[in-house]
Amino acid sequence: MSTTTITPPSAAVLEEARERFDALAKPLGSLGRLEELGAWVASCQGVCPPKPLDRVRAVIPAGDHGVTTRGVASYPREITVAMVHTLVAGKAGMSALAAQHNVPVRVLDISVDADLEGLPADVTSHKLGRGCGSIDVEDAMTRAQTEEALAVGARIVAEELEQGAQLLIIGDLGIGNTTPSAALVAALTGSSAAVVTGRGAGLDDEGLSRKTAVVEKALARTTGVTDPVDRLAALGSPDMAVAVGMMLAAAAARLPVLLDGVISVAEALVAASIDPDVVAWMQAGHRSPEPASGIALDSLGLAPILDLGMRLGEGTGAMTALPVLRSGVAVLRDMALLADLMPAE
Amino acid sequence: MSTTTITPPSAAVLEEARERFDALAKPLGSLGRLEELGAWVASCQGVCPPKPLDRVRAVIPAGDHGVTTRGVASYPREITVAMVHTLVAGKAGMSALAAQHNVPVRVLDISVDADLEGLPADVTSHKLGRGCGSIDVEDAMTRAQTEEALAVGARIVAEELEQGAQLLIIGDLGIGNTTPSAALVAALTGSSAAVVTGRGAGLDDEGLSRKTAVVEKALARTTGVTDPVDRLAALGSPDMAVAVGMMLAAAAARLPVLLDGVISVAEALVAASIDPDVVAWMQAGHRSPEPASGIALDSLGLAPILDLGMRLGEGTGAMTALPVLRSGVAVLRDMALLADLMPAE
Repeated sequence: MSTTTITPPSAAVLEEARERFDALAKPLGSLGRLEELGAWVASCQGVCPPKPLDRVRAVIPAGDHGVTTRGVASYPREITVAMVHTLVAGKAGMSALAAQHNVPVRVLDISVDADLEGLPADVTSHKLGRGCGSIDVEDAMTRAQTEEALAVGARIVAEELEQGAQLLIIGDLGIGNTTPSAALVAALTGSSAAVVTGRGAGLDDEGLSRKTAVVEKALARTTGVTDPVDRLAALGSPDMAVAVGMMLAAAAARLPVLLDGVISVAEALVAASIDPDVVAWMQAGHRSPEPASGIALDSLGLAPILDLGMRLGEGTGAMTALPVLRSGVAVLRDMALLADLMPAE
Repeated sequence: MSTTTITPPSAAVLEEARERFDALAKPLGSLGRLEELGAWVASCQGVCPPKPLDRVRAVIPAGDHGVTTRGVASYPREITVAMVHTLVAGKAGMSALAAQHNVPVRVLDISVDADLEGLPADVTSHKLGRGCGSIDVEDAMTRAQTEEALAVGARIVAEELEQGAQLLIIGDLGIGNTTPSAALVAALTGSSAAVVTGRGAGLDDEGLSRKTAVVEKALARTTGVTDPVDRLAALGSPDMAVAVGMMLAAAAARLPVLLDGVISVAEALVAASIDPDVVAWMQAGHRSPEPASGIALDSLGLAPILDLGMRLGEGTGAMTALPVLRSGVAVLRDMALLADLMPAE
């Protein structure tokens, strides 16, 4: 579906980076995962040693979900609006972490079910509509709406590249969004609703049953759907489709992406169903306790950098993992080569 | 053995921090391990929200080990000298990571088996001697030497506090140092030599057999030793004893410590055998693939923050984990309270 072609990160630079790691003043392989991460950044940048990751950018597409009318979420959908304001005010969890790690955060109202006021113009500059269909009984959106959202994602990536983005963190915001995520992961991995569905922000047993039933109905309703974009239209949401579009466009533009939790990896799985080559441009920031997260990561073949029980969303897991990626770059850039070691006395 | 008393971090502030986490604008517990880490820093500082960790300091006590004459290491002991120079030059793995994360690194020649020249005076300001006994046949040092090393550790902590240290990373440097670490972990946890001994910097099967035999002989030679300081004298080394002294003095001074890999956790286990209250002032930066690392962490009751297959030493695992600790502090400081959320529109 992507109109541009995704080519892989540079294999030659990957090899060069691996050789450089082996030539550094340290035992072979002793930096563990940092070596893989540093070499990956180099191969994405096409240069070894890689440039420091000082122009990382985070984008949070926000949207509401029809399924919130089904009692699948611990919080009322009004919280989506409140959290957009909190992010704009720089007081959300993602804001605190991004400030700590020196990353600008851009929140975008894609499909929040409200007319947001009193916000910077950029926040609503890509708004597509209010909310989406409840996936247990109807498609979240039409195919045309889905294609438009994918295109919006590509436009956002173009804007981020204009700002000099070297790496993208794509967060999420929207009460109810772990439900479409679970449904998409189930549909794309052949898992059952019971296996993929989790407690989200903290559902009790009854809420979990309701949520599982919604996912089950959504899956039953869409068994015949095999086209990747149709599946996204049926089970996703506009904000998630924008994120999918961002992932595809980023990979096409050779811009690497650090994934976050269950919403992010569900979007990655959808992007990979559209173009499997997208995965080479991704690393997994963390594993969320939400069960669909691990299932999606396994299916993508990505190992999470962190596993700290984080389930706040917004991109917070990826933001917490970012310094590990930067550490991988730092050792590849700044360590002495064995050949440079001063002679022993 | 410690001449000062260790009292625990503030239980009242810990409770205050937990209550603040529960009052933040996020689902309960949704920041996972970051909540535990942020609350721990607050309880160590005795203030909630805690101050940002911008005055972290790293100290690397370096020393040589008699066991290197037994073929237990992949590198010749001359590499210890070369790596002291590399650290001073700011070109070691630890240097690269510390620069990335804005932490000064201080390398100290405690017992390197050479007369180091052409280095800043501070590097040799605490030198105790050259090398130590080979623990398979003799004690690493005398009880008096061990007590002196513990006292040197306390003096170093006093110097670090004068520099304003808020948190200490204690690294390691010395070819052969995973052998005494394995022996100490075995002796303190009742594990066998075969279970605790690993490949260190990359031993082959034959080297691993030799190393295991050395640990076995060291354990057999010291079965009657039960006093914690005598055990450290028998199986440790001067540089490790300095690190143990630092851990005890740091805890007594209410200065938290972020542990590194197998050498660091072996030292922590020794410190805990001298005064179990020291553990409350520690977090485990990472788990090393060296088997004694996980055994020691389990015995200490500490869960590693990272598990990335790192086994370079020097403090690199702790340094890579530091930003996660800072993330825990950032969310506790800078997020909005639920009560502060703007009203939904």
